[in-house]
Amino acid sequence: MLRIQYEDMRDEFERVLLKYDFTPSKARVCARVFAENSLEGVYSHGANRFPRFIHDIKAKHVFVDAEPEKMTWAGAFEQWNGNHGPGILNALVSADRAMELAKQYGIGCVGLAHTNHWMRGGTYGRKVANAGYVYMGWTNTIPNMPAWGAIDNKLGNNPMVLAVPAKNGPIVLDMAMSQFSYGKMEDLAMKNRQLPVAGGFNKSGQLSTDPKEILKTGRPLSIGCWKGAGLSLLLDIMAAILSGGLASFQIGLQDAEYNVSQVFIAFDTTNLINSHRISALVRHIIKDYKNSMPESESTGILFPGERVLLTRKENLEKGIPVNQSVWDTIKGL
Amino acid sequence: MLRIQYEDMRDEFERVLLKYDFTPSKARVCARVFAENSLEGVYSHGANRFPRFIHDIKAKHVFVDAEPEKMTWAGAFEQWNGNHGPGILNALVSADRAMELAKQYGIGCVGLAHTNHWMRGGTYGRKVANAGYVYMGWTNTIPNMPAWGAIDNKLGNNPMVLAVPAKNGPIVLDMAMSQFSYGKMEDLAMKNRQLPVAGGFNKSGQLSTDPKEILKTGRPLSIGCWKGAGLSLLLDIMAAILSGGLASFQIGLQDAEYNVSQVFIAFDTTNLINSHRISALVRHIIKDYKNSMPESESTGILFPGERVLLTRKENLEKGIPVNQSVWDTIKGL
Repeated sequence: MLRIQYEDMRDEFERVLLKYDFTPSKARVCARVFAENSLEGVYSHGANRFPRFIHDIKAKHVFVDAEPEKMTWAGAFEQWNGNHGPGILNALVSADRAMELAKQYGIGCVGLAHTNHWMRGGTYGRKVANAGYVYMGWTNTIPNMPAWGAIDNKLGNNPMVLAVPAKNGPIVLDMAMSQFSYGKMEDLAMKNRQLPVAGGFNKSGQLSTDPKEILKTGRPLSIGCWKGAGLSLLLDIMAAILSGGLASFQIGLQDAEYNVSQVFIAFDTTNLINSHRISALVRHIIKDYKNSMPESESTGILFPGERVLLTRKENLEKGIPVNQSVWDTIKGL
Repeated sequence: MLRIQYEDMRDEFERVLLKYDFTPSKARVCARVFAENSLEGVYSHGANRFPRFIHDIKAKHVFVDAEPEKMTWAGAFEQWNGNHGPGILNALVSADRAMELAKQYGIGCVGLAHTNHWMRGGTYGRKVANAGYVYMGWTNTIPNMPAWGAIDNKLGNNPMVLAVPAKNGPIVLDMAMSQFSYGKMEDLAMKNRQLPVAGGFNKSGQLSTDPKEILKTGRPLSIGCWKGAGLSLLLDIMAAILSGGLASFQIGLQDAEYNVSQVFIAFDTTNLINSHRISALVRHIIKDYKNSMPESESTGILFPGERVLLTRKENLEKGIPVNQSVWDTIKGL
């Protein structure tokens, strides 16, 4: 495993993006987000995913020079068309616009249709919460998860992100509706390790902790069984309605995952009755939460996004871990 | 088990509420919601809960004549103070107000502080979606669920509701962040039955399907393990920030569950680019979802809220099932 400095990784991504006709400013932003995803430990949507992003450009699923476009507006809620542009850039524009609307109306919502994979949803939650807003957003995906009691995949895992500002960095929940990502299961399968809890079904239809068995059936477990499946269904319907774009089943009819639908909601907190107390409130809630009695001395009680802050610190110091072959691939792009 | 006609149950609740100084119009509305909760199969928050609601009035946790009051406004986002009024009435006012704001601004949000248990969250989702809006709302609760890896309860189970309009009645997801409610576990424990999937921990700290063991430890399982625990934490922080009210840990410092915080968000769909296609879109999504391959012939693939519609139909025909002792208690109030 290599360790690459953040700046070097970002500059390498930027070099490639410029080669693929990104404007200098778009190349810089997009490269920064990919590098930050790896910096903060979300390797699956940082360096490891970058070659596939370039592939999607070549396959004309991602249009490098497309700009998102406002289609409808009704005060605090706007629908935008992503025009098949890079998912990261479209999502950043949408998050910014949701904040502008929230500043004006207290709450702001952007429904974004016909966009591409936003890589790591937490990017946008962290950005909005860092600017002092409360955030909620989600995306739909290709069908990759079954309904409860079903064996074929009709639902997306539809990641949802909630984020609130806090003094030492925001609290950011970034979670897909499947218990484990395919990336995580493939990683543990390669290492011949078991999942810590059941993550899907084996070929006998029994819940299993063996990632190899689950990857064979392609039948991952939704969080909370019927509950996460139901949440996924509703998030998909809402994403399609609010954006005016496609639902998961329609995305599944394509040759690949593009044309996804996303929702970005920001809440302004500066005019609230409790605005001067929010920082103290969040600190107290987190303090109480972390005072939980752990089941064993070795169990850490972490809040969502806490590990990200620790990983970021470590990777800034030591460099970002990257698989040699992944890095070679990127260097060759 | 008795079967009571819907109108008879509603009128009985109304009689009691009038005795406890509800105005005629408030008594009628509140009685209707309690009776509908039982009618639609949510017995735990219908007839079974009604005596406790009267107890909460006597204990002065619920102020019968309190009115919710607007505290701050910033365009599409308002904070209201529930003033300890009946949770159902406060929530109905908030849902109505969110729709009014959505009509004006495209999206509308009400944060409601210092209110009481709203009984069944689906009530408000169903109402808003029946009026043609998309809905999202949630509440916090007393701490009744542990953080992942913890043995004491620092988190609420914080039910969340998502709802969208559909032709034959809305799609409504109404879910708490624990895999099973305490009411469900108590019910199955009494019947000496096991839970269909793990629902909490036994005294050895192992996941268990035995409701008796879980009720002994008081350590229910959050949906998706760390994921549902994280979602619960974020929903609590957001409810407290957006309403200006209390967080779960502060509610837990009281002598009982009151002063809860809630959020109501409505999205207007009439001005959307796709407004004329929404009905067909939802129909297609649900059709595709229900075309899932079931794992066995006896497995039904139901959408969230589908069972409610079936139960409603059956209970309208046959009467609402009520335990004799519960009904006797209500008659004696």
